[in-house]
Amino acid sequence: MSKVSRRALVIGGLGAAGAVGAGAALLTGEEPAVSFSDAVAFHGTHQAGIVTPAQDRLHFVAFDVVTKDRDRLIQLLKDWTVAATRMTAGKDAGEVGAVAGLPEAPPDDTGEAIGLPASALTLTIGFGPTLFRTADGRDRFGLAGRQPGALAPLPKFTGDTLDAALSDGDIGIQACANDPQVAVHAIRNLARIGMGVVSVRWSQLGFGRTSSTSTGQATPRNLFGFKDGTRNLKAEQDELLREHLWVQPGDGPAWMDGGSYLVTRKIRMLVETWDRSPLVEQEAIVGRHKGSGAPIGLAGEFDEPDLTSVGDDDEPIMPKIAHVRLAHPATNNGARMLRRGYNFVDGSDGLGRLNAGLFFISYQRDPAKAFIPVQRSLAAQDEMNEYIRHVSSGLFACPPGIRDAGDFWGSGLFSGA
Amino acid sequence: MSKVSRRALVIGGLGAAGAVGAGAALLTGEEPAVSFSDAVAFHGTHQAGIVTPAQDRLHFVAFDVVTKDRDRLIQLLKDWTVAATRMTAGKDAGEVGAVAGLPEAPPDDTGEAIGLPASALTLTIGFGPTLFRTADGRDRFGLAGRQPGALAPLPKFTGDTLDAALSDGDIGIQACANDPQVAVHAIRNLARIGMGVVSVRWSQLGFGRTSSTSTGQATPRNLFGFKDGTRNLKAEQDELLREHLWVQPGDGPAWMDGGSYLVTRKIRMLVETWDRSPLVEQEAIVGRHKGSGAPIGLAGEFDEPDLTSVGDDDEPIMPKIAHVRLAHPATNNGARMLRRGYNFVDGSDGLGRLNAGLFFISYQRDPAKAFIPVQRSLAAQDEMNEYIRHVSSGLFACPPGIRDAGDFWGSGLFSGA
Repeated sequence: MSKVSRRALVIGGLGAAGAVGAGAALLTGEEPAVSFSDAVAFHGTHQAGIVTPAQDRLHFVAFDVVTKDRDRLIQLLKDWTVAATRMTAGKDAGEVGAVAGLPEAPPDDTGEAIGLPASALTLTIGFGPTLFRTADGRDRFGLAGRQPGALAPLPKFTGDTLDAALSDGDIGIQACANDPQVAVHAIRNLARIGMGVVSVRWSQLGFGRTSSTSTGQATPRNLFGFKDGTRNLKAEQDELLREHLWVQPGDGPAWMDGGSYLVTRKIRMLVETWDRSPLVEQEAIVGRHKGSGAPIGLAGEFDEPDLTSVGDDDEPIMPKIAHVRLAHPATNNGARMLRRGYNFVDGSDGLGRLNAGLFFISYQRDPAKAFIPVQRSLAAQDEMNEYIRHVSSGLFACPPGIRDAGDFWGSGLFSGA
Repeated sequence: MSKVSRRALVIGGLGAAGAVGAGAALLTGEEPAVSFSDAVAFHGTHQAGIVTPAQDRLHFVAFDVVTKDRDRLIQLLKDWTVAATRMTAGKDAGEVGAVAGLPEAPPDDTGEAIGLPASALTLTIGFGPTLFRTADGRDRFGLAGRQPGALAPLPKFTGDTLDAALSDGDIGIQACANDPQVAVHAIRNLARIGMGVVSVRWSQLGFGRTSSTSTGQATPRNLFGFKDGTRNLKAEQDELLREHLWVQPGDGPAWMDGGSYLVTRKIRMLVETWDRSPLVEQEAIVGRHKGSGAPIGLAGEFDEPDLTSVGDDDEPIMPKIAHVRLAHPATNNGARMLRRGYNFVDGSDGLGRLNAGLFFISYQRDPAKAFIPVQRSLAAQDEMNEYIRHVSSGLFACPPGIRDAGDFWGSGLFSGA
């Protein structure tokens, strides 16, 4: 019987984190706010994984709760919190070494992350509308009275082609890390711990974060080849985050104060069709130049898009149907959100094409004032719709952070309810 | 119209490659033979991507050839060779900036890798049995007389549950890189260039290489949580590579001299079932200790497995059905191959489980003396079969390397045929 412990093996990795972080930063020319292999603090006012500088890899999972027993669900949330605290610190999910005297027991960690550093792993939990009441209105866990108004199911948007089996879920957990093996290990162990209480409904891997969430990060590119997230909310914009990201006292039930609402949309991109369209047309649809990322007619990526000037032909320089215009706060009553989506390629689609696209993730104080109006605007008019299909959708209420080791995921939701 | 050029943006990244490589190496404690972001030479005696120290990420694609025109196929192979030469050097697939005067033309590169370094990208091509003759014996491109005996379709193995739509293919291309965005970009651009000549049959992403191919690399772990590939053939073992990896003159048609045969198997792992089995049982099935990777009964990962000693109970110390024993050269007439597989998670399976496993890749001089006998042995007896399903299979003849800029992928196969 061998002793298995991730912690012992990780110290070297953590000690070297500074050098590794510096190396990773050179890849994109950015200053790393969190290094490539360091641990991100799990406890705090807000959950990590929202304004945390976006890591490079994602594994997102949505669970169905399969128990009817409220106490078992609460116990799972407590067990998960312990495991998440350990894994985000670069440890194994449970003390596997400690079971050396129990060779007949399954290991308390699955092992594939042994020797790997924390890799900036964050685990962020949210609760879906169906946890509070089923589609037919049944109150499953005595939580119906606690459902925030902002957690009303999303409306159907024009052109939606959602796969119900790949959408929604009672609980969503976002794992982000700079090593996919670490993100996968975390989700897999949470699923293992939850066996009999929850069941994996859908899960999604992503790479190449498509938005920066910190001013220190360079803007990455999506699979249309364009810089994405130039005007994203950033961790450093305290006032904007209060206004647009974090739920404020009085917004709704107190258990969500300091939390945020998470919208996921799996957006298939028809990249083969896109790749056949002229560069000038691609740029008109996006509203940005492909090379620099600058708004049409301007030179710098971070130049404010000019939505009003007209050219010699009396047409707006920024095309009327440009994505940048339709999604701009000025077009949407000031709506803003924090995006941290990822590119995906899920093999091929059986029709000779890559099954590729964007797994869109946004966090916001109230979807009704952010994602919903912006998506209504885009769904109705965006020329980009010719090249994309929304195939999956999710909405989750992400509570505030865990304050200390005695606290657990969802404690506010379940306490006194 | 913006100018788009990857090359200009890449220089900074390449200049910093030394530092980045050092950083990446610290993650695993290994000495990097190829740095994290450097370019790997495309030209050489053998194709890159075989003994090249295994990169961290994979995008594998299998194409169907949809043209009947031999000349169009040859032209595509030439076009691909030019694009592959560029992309493996960290450039865009085509001179996108050069089309600035042609705004109505689609860009010659899709753009998502702009600004990213070469990331040790390798592109390795192989030709499947169906390129030479169809299942009903038709000679599609005048190549039937050139099909090597070693490229006979693989036999059906006990327990195979292959999905035909996810198996085989006329042409296979393996893209490995240390950045998934770079690997995906390469495959996507090859598919774009091949439009009308080839069609994507299936494709697979992978992460966390599950074998080392160089003595300088630490042994990584598969999704069973065990070290995988400890006894793999390594780049430094010249004599063994000659004997087991590279096709030698006289083995078959001369166009394959210096090449190698590639077998792919997508192996779904039932990780939820595995995770419920006791540690001692997991270790008996694998034949190694989970923590150290040492063979059962021994202390060091690289200790030679002891297949003969018996314990106090007169039973072999290395269990009779251990994977290590069944796959060992001593059990298979000396069979050895070079493995460079990757872990995968393709979301969930709709039954509450992760769709996870190993995308097995092996290269060998002759499958009939390597993969086939070993897989026959495993398929018949391996206790691990309870936890795995082979769902996809591929076989490809990978020609030798491209010697110079005048050469192209498949030149030997098509010349004079």
